[in-house]
Amino acid sequence: MDSSKNKTASPFKSTTADRRRRVFEAAINEFAAKGFNAANINTIAKSAGISIGSMYSYFESKEDLFLAVMDHCLEMMYKLLSGVDTTKGVVNAFEEMLRLARESAIENPQMHQIYLDCSSQSLRNLSERISDNAEAVTVRLYREILSYDKAIGRVRKDLDVNATAFMLDNLVMMYQFSFASGYYAERKKLFIGSRELGDSDELIESMTDFVRRAVEP
Amino acid sequence: MDSSKNKTASPFKSTTADRRRRVFEAAINEFAAKGFNAANINTIAKSAGISIGSMYSYFESKEDLFLAVMDHCLEMMYKLLSGVDTTKGVVNAFEEMLRLARESAIENPQMHQIYLDCSSQSLRNLSERISDNAEAVTVRLYREILSYDKAIGRVRKDLDVNATAFMLDNLVMMYQFSFASGYYAERKKLFIGSRELGDSDELIESMTDFVRRAVEP
Repeated sequence: MDSSKNKTASPFKSTTADRRRRVFEAAINEFAAKGFNAANINTIAKSAGISIGSMYSYFESKEDLFLAVMDHCLEMMYKLLSGVDTTKGVVNAFEEMLRLARESAIENPQMHQIYLDCSSQSLRNLSERISDNAEAVTVRLYREILSYDKAIGRVRKDLDVNATAFMLDNLVMMYQFSFASGYYAERKKLFIGSRELGDSDELIESMTDFVRRAVEP
Repeated sequence: MDSSKNKTASPFKSTTADRRRRVFEAAINEFAAKGFNAANINTIAKSAGISIGSMYSYFESKEDLFLAVMDHCLEMMYKLLSGVDTTKGVVNAFEEMLRLARESAIENPQMHQIYLDCSSQSLRNLSERISDNAEAVTVRLYREILSYDKAIGRVRKDLDVNATAFMLDNLVMMYQFSFASGYYAERKKLFIGSRELGDSDELIESMTDFVRRAVEP
């Protein structure tokens, strides 16, 4: 913990796109496979085909590299979220988010593993530097949709916007974890009955229906 | 991964209650502070005041010790869950579980940290040995309550029991995580507005109200 910077170091930003891609790819592989504590920055440099000297000119520490990887993953998540149609109301947005979560976790399982890992307590020093960034966009998005829905009477007048936003995001996150971690995959199977049903549109529809009834006027 | 046993070794079971307590206490401290990968079995033996020889007669590996700790934590969780009144319906049970989750996570934060840690992907080999045990009791409990509620018309006839059980447990787990991990504590604060409100009865009541409306006939 020898740095308080929360930003990608600037020599890294000014290197070629190809080098950045290689570093991110290698780092994501290593962090997802071993977790932050056991991940090795030398291994990452080696598999990215970059000298350890360059690596340390980009990042002062493994922590700084990890934060850059998180920033990179979050940017990709924001891009994804910006595709959600906010005009169709919270129930529709919730369903879209479940679908996006499923697609994205299947396509980039390692990113989701890293997120799950970083939110666990063993990384508590790192997590305090991350959570504001990571969640603020989602919080804003839910609040915006819910406040608008309330104003036009699409959800009930007495709905607690903050608690609802919290619960909806919790449901999306746990659903997402079920694709990113063996533990949560097994757990979903126990609840839903089979892996197929747990991954099906049917589950997404049941979850959406539950939320519709909870929020409707 | 040199053992396929999923049980506490028997020399450990037949040692004194005081030695068992010391080992669990030291192990919980070490696993919660460092996570499984970085935890050291020698450190645990030392702080439990037990020779490393005895320790290895109790547990073949760090993995076996961790599984025994998980079993111990799960037993305590089952005891807690057995206090939930299942006759008053799912809405009441959900509210009781939120309260139990809050109390227990505040009282035993380390146990919850270990659970969160073990459910993350970096422990994937372990997690496959744990999840069946860990979740089966909760799955059964929710199904039992929901099926009874449905039979007597306390919840709507078309309610998807499996999806509902999955969602309710997801909501309880994420709520629980918000007391056990700095990351999830910060995240809840962002959603709810302040730490006080996030820990308040008011949030529990809003969450319960949301669920009531989702399941009621």
